[in-house]
Amino acid sequence: MDISTVNSLPYEDFVNIFGNVVEKCPIITAAVWSSRPFVSLSALEAAISEFIDSLPESGKEGVLRCHPDLAGRDLRRGTLTRESREEQARAGLHALEPAEASRMARLNEEYKQRFGFPFVVCARMNDSTSILRQLAEGCRSELAAERARGIAEVKKICRVRLRGLVLDDVSNKL
Amino acid sequence: MDISTVNSLPYEDFVNIFGNVVEKCPIITAAVWSSRPFVSLSALEAAISEFIDSLPESGKEGVLRCHPDLAGRDLRRGTLTRESREEQARAGLHALEPAEASRMARLNEEYKQRFGFPFVVCARMNDSTSILRQLAEGCRSELAAERARGIAEVKKICRVRLRGLVLDDVSNKL
Repeated sequence: MDISTVNSLPYEDFVNIFGNVVEKCPIITAAVWSSRPFVSLSALEAAISEFIDSLPESGKEGVLRCHPDLAGRDLRRGTLTRESREEQARAGLHALEPAEASRMARLNEEYKQRFGFPFVVCARMNDSTSILRQLAEGCRSELAAERARGIAEVKKICRVRLRGLVLDDVSNKL
Repeated sequence: MDISTVNSLPYEDFVNIFGNVVEKCPIITAAVWSSRPFVSLSALEAAISEFIDSLPESGKEGVLRCHPDLAGRDLRRGTLTRESREEQARAGLHALEPAEASRMARLNEEYKQRFGFPFVVCARMNDSTSILRQLAEGCRSELAAERARGIAEVKKICRVRLRGLVLDDVSNKL
């Protein structure tokens, strides 16, 4: 799909296709439809990013709280969204060694207790070792810094998901 | 469940239980968790209402676009959320006469073409006749007025759904 096709979509199709580029936040996709047409994939990405930035701090925390734990209950129960399942699997989080799995679970709990939202990272840009390292660092960080880091990761996840759905600008020019 | 139980919920349980009080917008529930404890059910309702009001106009349109058509494709396909299914059924929208059904479908399309979001009304406070009347009136209305009316209906739907989940303040005082 190229950007001109994206721009021609009625909101229902737009939300059906792009509704989960920010995990479980179809409202964000549904909101940026108001800003079409987009001159490029980057412009669509920027509109999503700006919408997230426009949210109050509680809203940014809300975005983070819509994310599942990494290697957590949803992965074990099979209740992850399709996108999260694929991303966590590619990072090897479905096949952790027992010691790694229990360390991840313990750190996830510690992180959530401390900040009131889950540790969010772009799994597609990491492996289980780098995720565990960042999670451990996050547990020693501060609220505002972790909220900002988490939101920056949400935007990376969004970029990866969008690029899986829309031809990027260079391709469009070919 | 009373409000003190609500206030004791970790965010994951809070979002699991209340995530759909605004249709397909768990981010809103997840955001207001930051404002707990709530002194009453009304205070929780007010926090949700204020969060919606804090959204840019595009965000309010995004909230509306997360709602299904009344007596529309999701009802026919069985893909409504549990809450919407019950509400639409109670208003008799699952059992429209063929002539009513086709009029509703035609007006829904006209409305969406005109405004870029669906007609939203609190089905639990209406029946199919009053819904059809308001939908026909809406089709002749203006964008800003319909956006505001739709958001007011979103808040009514939210109130009804919340009151189905939490004992109201009077009950709590008994």
